[in-house]
Amino acid sequence: MTATPTDPHYTENVQDHLIQVQRLLDKHALVETVAHNQSLPRDERHELLDKMLHKRHLAELRERLADLHPADIAYILEALPIEQRLLVWELVKADRDGEILIEVSDAVRESLIATMSREELREAAEQLDTDEIADLAPDLPQNVMRDVFKSLSIEEREQLRAAMSYSEDSVGALMDFSMVHVREDVTLEVVSRYLRRFDELPDHTDQVFVVDRDDKFKGVLPINLIVVNEPEMVVGDLMITDTIQLHPDEKADQAAQSFERYDLVSAPVIDEDNKLIGRVTVNVVLDFIRSESETDLLNQAGLREEEDIFASVWKSAQNRWAWLALNLCTAFFASRVIGEFENTIVQFVALATLMPIVAGIAGNSANQTTTIIIRSLALGQITQGNASRLMVKELAISGFNGLVWGGIAGLFAYFLYHSVPLGLVMMSAMMLNLILGALVGIGIPLAMQKLGRDPAIGASVMLTAITDSGGFFIFLGLATIFLIS
Amino acid sequence: MTATPTDPHYTENVQDHLIQVQRLLDKHALVETVAHNQSLPRDERHELLDKMLHKRHLAELRERLADLHPADIAYILEALPIEQRLLVWELVKADRDGEILIEVSDAVRESLIATMSREELREAAEQLDTDEIADLAPDLPQNVMRDVFKSLSIEEREQLRAAMSYSEDSVGALMDFSMVHVREDVTLEVVSRYLRRFDELPDHTDQVFVVDRDDKFKGVLPINLIVVNEPEMVVGDLMITDTIQLHPDEKADQAAQSFERYDLVSAPVIDEDNKLIGRVTVNVVLDFIRSESETDLLNQAGLREEEDIFASVWKSAQNRWAWLALNLCTAFFASRVIGEFENTIVQFVALATLMPIVAGIAGNSANQTTTIIIRSLALGQITQGNASRLMVKELAISGFNGLVWGGIAGLFAYFLYHSVPLGLVMMSAMMLNLILGALVGIGIPLAMQKLGRDPAIGASVMLTAITDSGGFFIFLGLATIFLIS
Repeated sequence: MTATPTDPHYTENVQDHLIQVQRLLDKHALVETVAHNQSLPRDERHELLDKMLHKRHLAELRERLADLHPADIAYILEALPIEQRLLVWELVKADRDGEILIEVSDAVRESLIATMSREELREAAEQLDTDEIADLAPDLPQNVMRDVFKSLSIEEREQLRAAMSYSEDSVGALMDFSMVHVREDVTLEVVSRYLRRFDELPDHTDQVFVVDRDDKFKGVLPINLIVVNEPEMVVGDLMITDTIQLHPDEKADQAAQSFERYDLVSAPVIDEDNKLIGRVTVNVVLDFIRSESETDLLNQAGLREEEDIFASVWKSAQNRWAWLALNLCTAFFASRVIGEFENTIVQFVALATLMPIVAGIAGNSANQTTTIIIRSLALGQITQGNASRLMVKELAISGFNGLVWGGIAGLFAYFLYHSVPLGLVMMSAMMLNLILGALVGIGIPLAMQKLGRDPAIGASVMLTAITDSGGFFIFLGLATIFLIS
Repeated sequence: MTATPTDPHYTENVQDHLIQVQRLLDKHALVETVAHNQSLPRDERHELLDKMLHKRHLAELRERLADLHPADIAYILEALPIEQRLLVWELVKADRDGEILIEVSDAVRESLIATMSREELREAAEQLDTDEIADLAPDLPQNVMRDVFKSLSIEEREQLRAAMSYSEDSVGALMDFSMVHVREDVTLEVVSRYLRRFDELPDHTDQVFVVDRDDKFKGVLPINLIVVNEPEMVVGDLMITDTIQLHPDEKADQAAQSFERYDLVSAPVIDEDNKLIGRVTVNVVLDFIRSESETDLLNQAGLREEEDIFASVWKSAQNRWAWLALNLCTAFFASRVIGEFENTIVQFVALATLMPIVAGIAGNSANQTTTIIIRSLALGQITQGNASRLMVKELAISGFNGLVWGGIAGLFAYFLYHSVPLGLVMMSAMMLNLILGALVGIGIPLAMQKLGRDPAIGASVMLTAITDSGGFFIFLGLATIFLIS
């Protein structure tokens, strides 16, 4: 089912295609404008343009698109503004709709599905494997899903139901069902004869799975071993039993780490009864790793989700609001902390100029600490045996940094305002705030991890909130005690 | 050469092994302490402990390590403090040194290599393929590299020289030389007979490469096609010519994108004369993508490079200094901007409490913008055709956000200080600073890209510097004009 009607065409540089498509779209748009120019007589316009130029550009565009790999079309669709995107989408041959929908990002997929009829959506879904339909399912209307479900065989329905039942970050969500299995008591010759009955093996078939009569998993037989061994060898003698076995409820990122560590191309998925139920392939793992790392970057910047770069201003703004709102709340709070010290500031206005330094550097340093900790947590390097050791180390670094950078900042303050006490307050405040930053920089991700939540989400907003408010409080507090009265 | 002496052992949960190793190391350390406890008679100590317990733990540890995959040992080494790490390193069988060194992170590799003799290093390097030696080369002493070079065959020397000549972010750096090639005029039967002469095909051999007499690249023949077709078929009739061909000087991340888009397992690398010179495999691409995304995260947090979590405080501090220093400079500058308005602040102390809000929200919003732009640049979605459109959109979003959040902040200021002009100044300053943030949030990454530099590096520090200083200047400037005098 994954086989495309024609062989996919590969492109060295897909951006060139994008630029060509954009050029054709621009020409098309120009012609459209002229064609609707009311100053020309209607007939003339039609004959001259609509027939000659207009259709020529679209035909050229259609031809160009027909040659492209679905993934490349997906890329072009993502890079086009919404009205051009829908024009291109119309031109794409209907028999590749499904594959393209699978390839585009969630945000863009939504914009494409919105233009498709129930019938078109059903046809698109029917081109796909059950595991791909499961990926698409959350975006499809209920009635379409019902239609699709009816069109499947009993075995496929079972697969679809299974695929949809696993949570998004589990191995089950990465799994597909296109695996080849053989028995352990046959010879390689029998296996070869069996394989020759396929026109094409499923993508990423680097190994066939060995199962018994009840589908219980026995081992794997790499295709390469079929190729290098004599045909009379028996599967059971060649198969590898000491191999990675994934379980559908396992965390997807643990499976991804296995793929990275052991350089896998595919791995079997086994249920609790040791029955082979599917496989995971490296291309899916690659996509998973890419999307995980993008999510991390987006979340760190305070974006809720991947954004269609041509989404409406309104939609994009909504994607960014949650975090800006949170940020505004913490800023208001920090502002009130400063407000408590208005009297102190009036008496010593230098404090107002220096306080952002104290807050800023500690925020930066705390972010460094938390990034190291989150990364080590993700790699599973932090255990009970070394957590306290790490804590001590990070505190030592921040204390040391406090001395160095606090000292420099203290000197800066002294030279500007010629006050030794001010310099000392500056230095102590920097040191204390850096240490506070290290404490929360370690504490927040560890606590999140303990609570079973993703330590990367929201860490930096919380950190900055604490180092800002904390910095203002420590600096202005120390100043009130030692400089005023 | 890549084949391990024994089959690799896979582990479901490598963290369990780490915890076991830590437990054994702790027991060992305890025994060490007792053994050096001066209150016991010397003989007794030796007999009782050193012989019985001490060695038992080490033997158990050695046994446990012998079973592990080199990648798992690398993981354990990374998660151990330096003295325990070196103890474990001593226990690892010498014949896997090379493979483990390839797997550990740069920082940890340094700490391991520092303890090895010239002889040990030479032996470790000689276990590796030439492309792996090239990866290790920057960390090896000159004289070791000379020894290694001498031990290679002429062909291997050629390969090593080639592999070392490519820049780190090029396809050449990802390339290996273990590919299988065949001629196009032979039958599958001949190919099969040729392949059977291998004990094992190189890892990730999903296809063999078809070349002519002069090693010119003709096409690829997927192993799966060998398996599903009749033996009398001819290679030339089955081979696929429309396939991705990489070039050694191409950017590595472009190759990585091809792997993702086209779900490749391996791809040929061709030089300018169309000669096949190597291949890239998906496991290397996976590592590359992971390390790229980690570099992004580390750089965004202001860390120069990956850090050994158990590096000394001094070493870790150095890794973090460059960015803290830069941050301190920009903070000093922002502080001087505020300093210019000291008179204004003395007359209206509320300004000191409100100014961090103006700076903070714009910094956050600018970071959102720049993250979207950097991501779109990385995906190649930004062309001359749509850059100005994106710019307009981001400005519209920030103007809109400025109205909404500026309005809220203005109301906040009004309710706190009962001054309508203050509220209006607050709102206008927020809006202007958000727009400034959007401008630099787009401008900086686009300019960096134009200059041929990585747009992700340093973007957030520069942004924050501008939104901070700019925010203070706009807010306090407006206040000076409209609130004072």
